[in-house]
This record gives sequence, C-alpha cells and structure tokens, in this order.
Amino acid sequence: MVEHHTVKSFDAELELLGRHISEMGGVAEKMLADAMDALAGMNAELAHKVIAADVRLDALQRDVEEQTVSIIARRQPVAVDLREIIGAMRIAGDLERVGDLAKNVAKRAAKIAGEGRIPRAVAGLKSMHELAVMQLNDVLDAYAQRDAERAKEVWLRDAQLDALEDSVFRDLLTHMMEDPRNITFCTHLLFCSKNLERVGDHTTNIAETVYYIVTGQSLPTERPRGLDSSALP
Amino acid sequence: MVEHHTVKSFDAELELLGRHISEMGGVAEKMLADAMDALAGMNAELAHKVIAADVRLDALQRDVEEQTVSIIARRQPVAVDLREIIGAMRIAGDLERVGDLAKNVAKRAAKIAGEGRIPRAVAGLKSMHELAVMQLNDVLDAYAQRDAERAKEVWLRDAQLDALEDSVFRDLLTHMMEDPRNITFCTHLLFCSKNLERVGDHTTNIAETVYYIVTGQSLPTERPRGLDSSALP
Repeated sequence: MVEHHTVKSFDAELELLGRHISEMGGVAEKMLADAMDALAGMNAELAHKVIAADVRLDALQRDVEEQTVSIIARRQPVAVDLREIIGAMRIAGDLERVGDLAKNVAKRAAKIAGEGRIPRAVAGLKSMHELAVMQLNDVLDAYAQRDAERAKEVWLRDAQLDALEDSVFRDLLTHMMEDPRNITFCTHLLFCSKNLERVGDHTTNIAETVYYIVTGQSLPTERPRGLDSSALP
Repeated sequence: MVEHHTVKSFDAELELLGRHISEMGGVAEKMLADAMDALAGMNAELAHKVIAADVRLDALQRDVEEQTVSIIARRQPVAVDLREIIGAMRIAGDLERVGDLAKNVAKRAAKIAGEGRIPRAVAGLKSMHELAVMQLNDVLDAYAQRDAERAKEVWLRDAQLDALEDSVFRDLLTHMMEDPRNITFCTHLLFCSKNLERVGDHTTNIAETVYYIVTGQSLPTERPRGLDSSALP
C-alpha cells in the first residue's frame, strides 16, 4: 500500500508539473496575441498589459524549476520519468523566452503607437505572427498529448516562418530606402520580425524536447532552416 | 572501499563535466573574437571559419546534456551535487546560444565584407564586443572557481553593455538617415549589435547559474537593465 501510495503521488507531481507548463503556454500565447494586436492597432495600453504579464510568466518558470529540482532530489527518477522532468524544465525555459520576445514586441508597439505609418509593412508581420502562434499552439498540443509525430511536423514547418521573415525583411528595407522618415519606425518593425522568427526557434526547441520525452531520441542536429536575414539581401 | 571508489568516480564525472563546460567556453570565446575580427576586418574567410566552428560547439552541448542526464539517472545526486549538474546543463545551453550569436555576426560579416562603409559605426560595435568578451571571460572564471561574489559582479555590470547598445543604435540610425545607401549595411550592424547585447544576456544567465550552484540561492528576478533599443529612440 505504501509503495502504491508513493507511486500515485509521484504521478500527481508529474501531472502538476504538466499543468504548470500548460499554464505557462497559455500565458505566453496570450502575450504574443496581445503584443501583435497592440502593434497592429497602435494600442499603447494593451502593450503595457503585455509588459506587465511577463512577471507572471517569469514566476511560473521559477516554480517549474524549483519543482523539477525538488522532484529529482526526492524521487530520483529514471528513464521516461527523468525525461519528463528534464523536458519540463527545458520547455519552461523556452516559454519564458517566448514571453520575453512578446514583451519586446509590446515595448516597441508602445514606442511607435503614435506614428501610424505604413500599414503594408505591418501586414507582413501579421502573417508571421499568425504562423508563429499556430506553430506554438500545435507544439503545446503535441506536448499535452505526448505526440512525437506531431512535434516533428511542427519542427519541419519552421522553415516557412524563416521564409516569411526573409520577405518582411526585404519589404522593410525597401520602405526605409524610399523615405528616410520611415527608418526609425521600420527599424522597430525589423526587430519585431526578428522576435517572431525567434519565437519560431523556441517552438522548434519545444518540438525537439517533446520528441525526446516521448521517444528518448533526438531529432537531427540541423534544424530545417529557410534563409534568415543574415543571408540577405 | 567500494563506497570510497564510487564517490571518487562520481567526483571524476563531475570534473569531466566541468572540463567540457570550460572547453565550450573556450570555443564560444574564440568564435566571438573571430566573428568581430571578421566584421572589423571585412574578412569573409575568417567569417566562414566561425560558421564552421559552431558544429563543434553544438556537439559539445549534446555531450554535456547526455552526460548530465546519465549522471542524474545513475548517481541520483542531491543538494550541491544536483545543483552542479543542473547548473552545467544550463550553462552549456547558454554557451551554445553564444556560439549561435557569434555565428550570426560572422554570417553578416561575410555578407557585407565587400562593402567597407563607415568605420565609425564598426568602432561602436568593437567597444560592445570588448565588453561582452570581458564579461564572458569573467563569468567563466567565476564558474571555474565557483566564486558567487565574482559572478554577482559580472551580473551587475550587464547594464553597461545595454547602455553601449543604446548609443550604437542611435549612431546607426543617424548613419541610415544621412544616406539611404547606408541602410542595408547599417541594418546588418544593428542586428550584430543586438547579438552582442544578447551575448550579455546569456552571460548574466551564466552568472545567475554560478550563484545558484554555489549558494543554492537565486539572484533577484529582475536583472540589472539599461535601456534596450525597444525603449528608443
């Protein structure tokens, strides 16, 4: 009975860990959605809400880290249990970084909210954003279902986001060259676009982690890559 | 005797882990130095050497991750030993990202090697680079000596790098506004400057990890921050 009880409460601890990751995922997705709405709608108030939300995400990550270290120390897990715990720690780190990137987009949105230039340039960012959010959503579902194949599909699709960034980068440079008054505004959008591409990098990291948790294997070292802007123009 | 032997070989494993981290640190520092030399000297050949070196760093990180998971599974460490191992895993992740950032600077250096514009703009980046390398070097020494106070000093100095990025950002925007032909070149330098600032972020992460390994405590949630370019201009 005691043995049984111990195993059950270990399961409960793992489940709690999984719930904390889901909660982090929800906060990160909301921050990302709000950051883009703030940017597209020139909404400084919403931008400040995103910036404030990051504190919650950081606190959740600390909780997950403390839980994982404590579980390892007390339970001394092996095999798939150990992969679950190491995996949760990694995913929490990636989600915390996604929140930082959303916060950075929001800061830039607050900064340029008064300007209202070039809706065309923001349209490209919106496409990147939609894809980034869809990918993040998919990988969190893959994690919730411990679905290695679905994780691998997300991982393979990252090249699409890189290709979109390529096209946004070229458009923004064109706007800057057309009119120097666009330079400051477009520079902030360039960094927003880079931030969204990096959200994609963290999403592929999470996909790799899910694959590792489920299979015990690593995906290939080289991630699928489109061009990034360092190869341009 | 068996007990003693077991403990000794655990120490040997931890020492090997520490040596792998040092090796990763050496590779990352060299990549960063070479990337900046490639950028300042418009040396595409050196840039390609940096890009090639990143494969080695990625492989070393995988080794460290495998070692850490294997040690946890076999040794079931607690307290400071567990912190050492979790810490090594985190530091390896940060050093791998420093390598990625150096590689990105090198890619941009290779791209703009033919242009040779605006030595003044590159001078600002060199100052950022010197500070970033010094900070990285210091935090790796703090790790080697398990010196929490020294790690904290590195952590506090990160604001200087943020302030330098602020000034580089303003200078580059000015160059772009002065002459639209500078836009492409300066955009690549903007991203290089952002990369160096992010090297600083990973250095402060490592400082936090060293502090945690040695003391079991966390540094405050909020890192010391100067302005970043999202708050500008």
